Amino acid sequence: MSRIEAPRSEDTAATGTLVDLLLGGLPAEAVLTDPDVTASYANDMASFCPAGTPAVVVLPRTVEQVQHVMRTATALRVPVVPQGARTGLSGAANASEGCIVLSLTKMDRILEINPVDRIAVAEPGVINAVLSRAVGEHGLYYPPDPSSWEMCTIGGNIGTASGGLCCVKYGVTAEYVLGLDVVLADGRLMSTGRRTAKGVAGYDLTRLFVGSEGSLGIVVRAVLGLRPKPPEQLVLAAEFASAAAACDAVCRIMEGGHVPSLLELMDRTTVKAVNDMAQMDLPESTEALLLAAFDTTAPAADLAAVGALCEAAGATQVVPADDAAESELLLQARRLSLTALEAVKGVTMIDDVCVPRSRLAEMLEGVDRIAEKYRLTIGVVAHAGDGNTHPTVCFDPADPDESRRARESFDEIMALGLELGGTITGEHGVGVLKKEWLAREIGPVGMEMQRAVKQAFDPLNILNPGKLF
Amino acid sequence: MSRIEAPRSEDTAATGTLVDLLLGGLPAEAVLTDPDVTASYANDMASFCPAGTPAVVVLPRTVEQVQHVMRTATALRVPVVPQGARTGLSGAANASEGCIVLSLTKMDRILEINPVDRIAVAEPGVINAVLSRAVGEHGLYYPPDPSSWEMCTIGGNIGTASGGLCCVKYGVTAEYVLGLDVVLADGRLMSTGRRTAKGVAGYDLTRLFVGSEGSLGIVVRAVLGLRPKPPEQLVLAAEFASAAAACDAVCRIMEGGHVPSLLELMDRTTVKAVNDMAQMDLPESTEALLLAAFDTTAPAADLAAVGALCEAAGATQVVPADDAAESELLLQARRLSLTALEAVKGVTMIDDVCVPRSRLAEMLEGVDRIAEKYRLTIGVVAHAGDGNTHPTVCFDPADPDESRRARESFDEIMALGLELGGTITGEHGVGVLKKEWLAREIGPVGMEMQRAVKQAFDPLNILNPGKLF
Repeated sequence: MSRIEAPRSEDTAATGTLVDLLLGGLPAEAVLTDPDVTASYANDMASFCPAGTPAVVVLPRTVEQVQHVMRTATALRVPVVPQGARTGLSGAANASEGCIVLSLTKMDRILEINPVDRIAVAEPGVINAVLSRAVGEHGLYYPPDPSSWEMCTIGGNIGTASGGLCCVKYGVTAEYVLGLDVVLADGRLMSTGRRTAKGVAGYDLTRLFVGSEGSLGIVVRAVLGLRPKPPEQLVLAAEFASAAAACDAVCRIMEGGHVPSLLELMDRTTVKAVNDMAQMDLPESTEALLLAAFDTTAPAADLAAVGALCEAAGATQVVPADDAAESELLLQARRLSLTALEAVKGVTMIDDVCVPRSRLAEMLEGVDRIAEKYRLTIGVVAHAGDGNTHPTVCFDPADPDESRRARESFDEIMALGLELGGTITGEHGVGVLKKEWLAREIGPVGMEMQRAVKQAFDPLNILNPGKLF
Repeated sequence: MSRIEAPRSEDTAATGTLVDLLLGGLPAEAVLTDPDVTASYANDMASFCPAGTPAVVVLPRTVEQVQHVMRTATALRVPVVPQGARTGLSGAANASEGCIVLSLTKMDRILEINPVDRIAVAEPGVINAVLSRAVGEHGLYYPPDPSSWEMCTIGGNIGTASGGLCCVKYGVTAEYVLGLDVVLADGRLMSTGRRTAKGVAGYDLTRLFVGSEGSLGIVVRAVLGLRPKPPEQLVLAAEFASAAAACDAVCRIMEGGHVPSLLELMDRTTVKAVNDMAQMDLPESTEALLLAAFDTTAPAADLAAVGALCEAAGATQVVPADDAAESELLLQARRLSLTALEAVKGVTMIDDVCVPRSRLAEMLEGVDRIAEKYRLTIGVVAHAGDGNTHPTVCFDPADPDESRRARESFDEIMALGLELGGTITGEHGVGVLKKEWLAREIGPVGMEMQRAVKQAFDPLNILNPGKLF
């Protein structure tokens, strides 16, 4: 693959040409060059991942403007880093040195909501929560709900194939993307997919773009599948005296054919962190807290059945909610988890290893061993129903030795995930954070074909170079 | 893309070399060369599509044997046509002249069924019904149910991204393929995807192979997602005095937030054909018959709600089943539809146009107009809940003028589908039958990128050449 020599930001002449050319197709207010401003676009939430300084930040409002940006980038061989709300956790939206940051946040119109066809058509800058509420007014439901849903954009969700709490029942973003309009590296516009419920005309390029972290093209419009809004969910909390028992309950629930709308696990470390921060009065003896929810027509019956399975697996206490308010209360501990873990040491590195759910207990035991080995606090929050764990390494970045141990433990957690038949990333993506690990997961032949696909779409390697590979 | 000159089957010397090389890695009984036998592998069910004569048919039983076949094919530049049960309807499995037919039917082992992880691992030659029944014994459900499910293979289902009656609730084959082992054109083995519930490591190559009609690689193993087995479904039949009223009912049902497990429509022509063949005593006044089913925990309540919507849309009669036996009886007319339409003239050409369900009425009216214009019998069976119509053109192949009109009407139906915002194929694929139409649907930029993907995986163009493009 050809390597691009990016113009250095010091290279004022080159940047001047770049900006002049961009201004040929963009209004002045859509082209930001003040270094203090552009520097603020350097990072997503993976602040410890390396990032360069953008040469310029552009904020197009139309497809034509995006095409102009890509034509300019191709002409000058300047790398382009597409960005949404920069809430990603893998550095996929981090700037590379001298790049054009292409922020899609101003393309934020919902173009259509169709309750008969159960689709929405949206621009990439629409915020997840805005779309979710808008479709909700039509009795519809857009399930993908990453933790950052109040801030993150649909385009970012598509770029990172993001998940959330709902995935155990409703799957990930990928399953809701029916068709895309994409501006290619050279500025041409391509439509993929469909607005119908089914369609198999040619290769599924739509799905190829989902999770491609802006490395194959710029999504400028998406046709999204919707579902009818389900009834409000009812939540059950179950406390266990061991993580293994909680994982056993997860297996029994899934093997028993239940379809929870949420099945989350917090380990001892996380429970303690939440207690310390928010005085939630969760019992100190709790080694694992399991939260299950059902959004069925008879959720109380489902909770009763699942509660019995939890007890059979050794739950020390089972608390089913009676109504939505109680449910919300039970979920609060889960919602506070990451903030509470952050408070332990100031900084966290959130891993995202997904294992077959039958191996979840081994994963949690392994993380405990790793925490002990590296003398670190590592809390685990898990989308347990999916086997998707977020081992969260707490460390003080001012302490170089602890930082090194944090990084090493983070890697050892991924190695463990692979050993258990899992993946290094269930929903956060590869970005910069895990690019050395991608090859370990998919092997040399897979890597070669991944690169061949990249080469087919971006022969000049100007689209988010240095990410994924 | 490079064009391959296939060795002609008359070219005995070349075929001799090919067979000798194949026998270097395959047992004698896995290499068929008797022309009478190999000729029987020339076609799938699209018998009117052109097909060549295979030079040889191979029936490998192991991954290594498939790798040997592909290495041989690459060395000699011989095209390879992968086949399952040859029940496809688009000619995607039709032999090309002088090709190796690579039949995967002997790789038919179910390698694993895991109720906790809700996955099955299967070889490509496993028959859909065999897998469905096997997972059913574990309380699990593999939804994809093409009409040919008693004969068709999982590998064929993956290659064509096939659908079925269940799709309105459970989606198509693509949604159940989590990971693949694929033998590439040059014989190397690649693993894609995962066996976990989620995973976003790198580009989604798994999904790229689904529906690729054997043109990118040979699927030799699949990890399939499963669901818990739902309760048995209960069926309702509703008769309408116009197709438009039946389509209106479909829209009301979907807009109303209902999630039927089946929502099928038969038009007047189909109802008449079934009556003529099977004396089903469906009222002659029926202009459209709608069948809806629910596999929920309280299906009678769902049927009542949907029945009321049908009546509001003008249904002349609504018949809800009381039990599984009655449900089966109501479904019989649907099951007999294609056989009954075949009986009209001896041969049918089954189209597969999918439109947004809000445009279903226009599609049906349009097909009526086209049937009249071309003086043909065209019956429509539709997966109405998905907007996926199967206008079935009845014609006598011995009548050249009628055959010409059949072909023209078939094309006009696709044009109408595109005009209504639909796709030329909802679930049958492109194959040979619709390859001239693919470009019309996806446009020149899309075609170029489709070809670039093909080029990346199959630079010598030996994998099912002449299909799709």
